[in-house]
Amino acid sequence: MKIGFLGLGQMGSGMAANLVKAGNHVTVYNRSPGKAAALLEQGATEAKSVADACHGEAVITMVADDKALQALAFGEHGIIATLPKNAIHISCSTISVALSEKLTEAHEAAGQRFIAAPVFGRPDAAAAAKLAVVAAGPAETLADCTQIFEAIGHRTFILGDKPPIANLVKLSGNFLIASVIETLGEAMALVGKAGVDLHAYLDMLTSTLFSAPVYKTYGGLIAGNKFEPAGFAAPLGQKDIRLTLAAGEHLGVPMPVASLLRDRFLTLIATGGENLDWSALGKLAAKDSGQ
Amino acid sequence: MKIGFLGLGQMGSGMAANLVKAGNHVTVYNRSPGKAAALLEQGATEAKSVADACHGEAVITMVADDKALQALAFGEHGIIATLPKNAIHISCSTISVALSEKLTEAHEAAGQRFIAAPVFGRPDAAAAAKLAVVAAGPAETLADCTQIFEAIGHRTFILGDKPPIANLVKLSGNFLIASVIETLGEAMALVGKAGVDLHAYLDMLTSTLFSAPVYKTYGGLIAGNKFEPAGFAAPLGQKDIRLTLAAGEHLGVPMPVASLLRDRFLTLIATGGENLDWSALGKLAAKDSGQ
Amino acid sequence: MKIGFLGLGQMGSGMAANLVKAGNHVTVYNRSPGKAAALLEQGATEAKSVADACHGEAVITMVADDKALQALAFGEHGIIATLPKNAIHISCSTISVALSEKLTEAHEAAGQRFIAAPVFGRPDAAAAAKLAVVAAGPAETLADCTQIFEAIGHRTFILGDKPPIANLVKLSGNFLIASVIETLGEAMALVGKAGVDLHAYLDMLTSTLFSAPVYKTYGGLIAGNKFEPAGFAAPLGQKDIRLTLAAGEHLGVPMPVASLLRDRFLTLIATGGENLDWSALGKLAAKDSGQ
Amino acid sequence: MKIGFLGLGQMGSGMAANLVKAGNHVTVYNRSPGKAAALLEQGATEAKSVADACHGEAVITMVADDKALQALAFGEHGIIATLPKNAIHISCSTISVALSEKLTEAHEAAGQRFIAAPVFGRPDAAAAAKLAVVAAGPAETLADCTQIFEAIGHRTFILGDKPPIANLVKLSGNFLIASVIETLGEAMALVGKAGVDLHAYLDMLTSTLFSAPVYKTYGGLIAGNKFEPAGFAAPLGQKDIRLTLAAGEHLGVPMPVASLLRDRFLTLIATGGENLDWSALGKLAAKDSGQ
Repeated sequence: MKIGFLGLGQMGSGMAANLVKAGNHVTVYNRSPGKAAALLEQGATEAKSVADACHGEAVITMVADDKALQALAFGEHGIIATLPKNAIHISCSTISVALSEKLTEAHEAAGQRFIAAPVFGRPDAAAAAKLAVVAAGPAETLADCTQIFEAIGHRTFILGDKPPIANLVKLSGNFLIASVIETLGEAMALVGKAGVDLHAYLDMLTSTLFSAPVYKTYGGLIAGNKFEPAGFAAPLGQKDIRLTLAAGEHLGVPMPVASLLRDRFLTLIATGGENLDWSALGKLAAKDSGQ
Repeated sequence: MKIGFLGLGQMGSGMAANLVKAGNHVTVYNRSPGKAAALLEQGATEAKSVADACHGEAVITMVADDKALQALAFGEHGIIATLPKNAIHISCSTISVALSEKLTEAHEAAGQRFIAAPVFGRPDAAAAAKLAVVAAGPAETLADCTQIFEAIGHRTFILGDKPPIANLVKLSGNFLIASVIETLGEAMALVGKAGVDLHAYLDMLTSTLFSAPVYKTYGGLIAGNKFEPAGFAAPLGQKDIRLTLAAGEHLGVPMPVASLLRDRFLTLIATGGENLDWSALGKLAAKDSGQ
Repeated sequence: MKIGFLGLGQMGSGMAANLVKAGNHVTVYNRSPGKAAALLEQGATEAKSVADACHGEAVITMVADDKALQALAFGEHGIIATLPKNAIHISCSTISVALSEKLTEAHEAAGQRFIAAPVFGRPDAAAAAKLAVVAAGPAETLADCTQIFEAIGHRTFILGDKPPIANLVKLSGNFLIASVIETLGEAMALVGKAGVDLHAYLDMLTSTLFSAPVYKTYGGLIAGNKFEPAGFAAPLGQKDIRLTLAAGEHLGVPMPVASLLRDRFLTLIATGGENLDWSALGKLAAKDSGQ
Repeated sequence: MKIGFLGLGQMGSGMAANLVKAGNHVTVYNRSPGKAAALLEQGATEAKSVADACHGEAVITMVADDKALQALAFGEHGIIATLPKNAIHISCSTISVALSEKLTEAHEAAGQRFIAAPVFGRPDAAAAAKLAVVAAGPAETLADCTQIFEAIGHRTFILGDKPPIANLVKLSGNFLIASVIETLGEAMALVGKAGVDLHAYLDMLTSTLFSAPVYKTYGGLIAGNKFEPAGFAAPLGQKDIRLTLAAGEHLGVPMPVASLLRDRFLTLIATGGENLDWSALGKLAAKDSGQ
């Protein structure tokens, strides 16, 4: 399959590499240059512009936020303007529900096809093709993307025919992860101040009721104070909570823990945590308790 | 081993049955009568008073709250007054850190031994001997309890020589469970109002990052609106959050999500949820969003 | 002075009437027709379009939200396009800090002058010329507006030369009012459930430490359950908290009570309070307590 | 009138002095010695024990917390044991509703009379006889206390015949004051980070909607960073929020802002604010925003 891939950050570069490995012809593009070297060695082609990457059957986008995707999609010579009719735009970024709705309409108006397929997993999972893909869009289009999903992930979850629903579900998932970070942080501040060893505590939790990757991964980072380098930086977590709250406001759903997380991210970033992993949120309770 | 067992509720009756099954001589007691019938058939003996159950090498208590345990332990002809020197009181109830400290001192003064060994698991796990036991106390005493822990659970976690630490850790665990209920409830209110099927959503979560029993169990109850009969009633959840907050206050640890859970339990109980399972907390976000 | 007045809602119609009364030539405009009748009788002139009201020395805008003001200001034949050079746009609406920044720049680029002058007070204060005017902008321009501020209010507070600061301060004030509504609501839920008469309670508060109009006005509405007709409807309150939080996010300031108010407004509106006065927020605590 | 006065702290010493000034025979007592010197010069008599102060027609207590009052009232040779039949115990301390209920019953059983009369005001108001007295108890007993209330305060509010109601109302008032501190702190963190002068801001607020002593007093302390010496120390504020929440829990009333205040006080005290005035709570928002 001839695929364009836009966005070669920590996540995108691993995903693009796996698409090459699966035998696709992949043309890669990144706004800031110098990110493609390793991929070119693995067999990818470099695009000199967004339009250059929009000549195939599909184009995949994996960028940091709404603003970046908006520029790629709606800019002059952008995706909407240059993608062939019937070709597919697969949006893997974690973006707002509102932008996903806008893209759904714009691609339809342009005779192109659109799928939202955000992914769960950190950079190591992207490199290992172990992402979980949460996809939504017309069934036939989804079927045409099967090998792509299989190349980048190990599980695909289909959430119906409306792309924005996949984005909403992805945001809700990031909200749940941030909730685990915050609540583990509070529990660890409590038992830690009483002298309990945090690694032993985490081992107990994850051997029993809390035996899920989310507790192991983030609990380990909090217990070990390992917030650099950031696998997912605090401002990205802040963005996702903002988008979750915006979706909740649009739907009329109050989410008090999400509101708390919003304030926590603001505090983390305003007090020096801008470059830390979002799991550094889990240290605020300890800090507030004087530890 | 000659063991007294006090408290034959949903949890205690399963635990006592497993102790009988493991070959111990178990003398059972419950404040309100009529709870012992099945256990007597299985081979237990019935005590007519607390003191009657305190003649063996160990007595186990599994009751609803501080008040109930205080009555058993400090009442006239209670455990402190009647347990032989060197015999062991194993407290499995979820009680306050403060009461655990008081019991530690009182048993030491009386020449008796004391272990705090609260358990994680719902009534079905108690019946199946699949509880997780979180124990703390002097190493030698813990060693003498090994077969008891193995009879009632499938994992034992030793948390040092100070019994109250086990109670603190147990409370923190219940706080984390309640946090999962609340945050899943918020996420489900969000995606549910957008039309996502809650069971499919839960399946997605628990197949990936959130593949832990706590998400499966409580997510299933929330998605299915199954809050009766209560496996663990709302007022018990409220009590555990109260005790968590009290421990946090004593240690000087602010826990904002625990504070939120406190208000949620108050709302749940004040608006008709007194007899529901504590997982009914997970419906308040949907209710507040007009669903 | 020749003044255009755009926005004849509950607030604007009172303000425009006072400008007429003070001897100004006032040309009024409202997007939806039929609001000008009373003003015309008092001596105002009706504009048929936005541009029609932009021929004088100043134009005043008093509309519901950013969207409405954006349409007036940036629309084809809007204020920016038609106001004479050196004429003043006085923006009295409660709008976002971001829009105020955008207007500051756009008017400067167009050679016009811009003042932000949001007001405190409900419709009765607008009618009685008893608003408090919070104004910011270049000193000379402010001086040229003195008689306008005096015509509509009884106090003017000058907050420096940057218009957006006045909008920020106005938003912070509405946040403080909403905080009074929420906290009075919680206090009244507490003492009310114990049987204390709410009017007597309010009388005690407002005779002592809390002797401010904000407690008298909103306390009276809450105690008396008088939420219709809305002097300031719940969705407007929700909007102001949203703008406060947005300003806080931009500046990096976490505001936990504002976050709570956001959730409260969502709950109020999602559960049937869309047309009530924003003081109906003060009944949610009573509702959550089963009263 | 022959009056005993127990508790000569910052508040009590001013109140006792005013009772002397009003012509009463006042016998004063303080647990720790050396507090009575000034009062003896003004004409008071010193009691060597609690019992020594309980020979008159009334005894007034003004102490820091439940524990101190419990010791005075229920200790050996305490108030209950030594006060003559029909004499009145006027409790002015801010104590729990539960202790007030216990005192009501104990005094009745002992044939004594009991009034709860907590006061609003800081030490300067106590010295100036400008406290607001919030009293509850049997009408006839209240009538017998009229001159006492008039000697220490400038307004008396009667809240019915059940003493604990006065304590509940007093707690709710302190909750409202703490709410003003927190919300003013959030608003000031917001506008302050944008460069607004906090004193000018406060002047604007208190000249308009927020023209109440509570905004002037606490706003001035926050704007001026004047938290030492403490007029009312942070741990006392923490105690009052704890008692408010306990009353809310007993009545089944969730109070989310009170819960937030609880966490704020814990943070303040755990991070070095133990000896500061409770208004230091109003600086936490600025701190969390990196100011």
